[in-house]
Amino acid sequence: NKEFDDDGDVIVCRLSERRRVMIQDFRGKSLVSIREFYKKDGKELPSAKGISLTEEQWSALKKNIPNIEKAVRKMESHTM
Amino acid sequence: NKEFDDDGDVIVCRLSERRRVMIQDFRGKSLVSIREFYKKDGKELPSAKGISLTEEQWSALKKNIPNIEKAVRKMESHTM
Repeated sequence: NKEFDDDGDVIVCRLSERRRVMIQDFRGKSLVSIREFYKKDGKELPSAKGISLTEEQWSALKKNIPNIEKAVRKMESHTM
Repeated sequence: NKEFDDDGDVIVCRLSERRRVMIQDFRGKSLVSIREFYKKDGKELPSAKGISLTEEQWSALKKNIPNIEKAVRKMESHTM
């Protein structure tokens, strides 16, 4: 199930056909990268659409999951 | 603690000084947007650095948190 891309980054999962979560090594630090890819000459290449989170930013994201869920529900109750 | 930006999107949290998680309303569907901002003329504007996840993609991300954590630890044991 684990895959590696051409740069040796670990592809953890796909969020959609074109979107992946990867772990990148940046100067000995891990980055959690959530990114869209595009196809060119049969290769899948990373696009600018995406963000690579440091461990601190990834931790902040995880910690805020309940707040994110709450905000999604709130947004949905407004638009209904 | 809740803030709204100029487009009426909900700012859920900041991951760093420049990076935010927001909930956007896109045609009645919520998007979880993780994005970097930049300052221009005293305003904070969204940059291209970021990704807006549909609810399906956000669910897939959440479900994969244990796999992401595992991959981070694996990457770190390799670089040490």
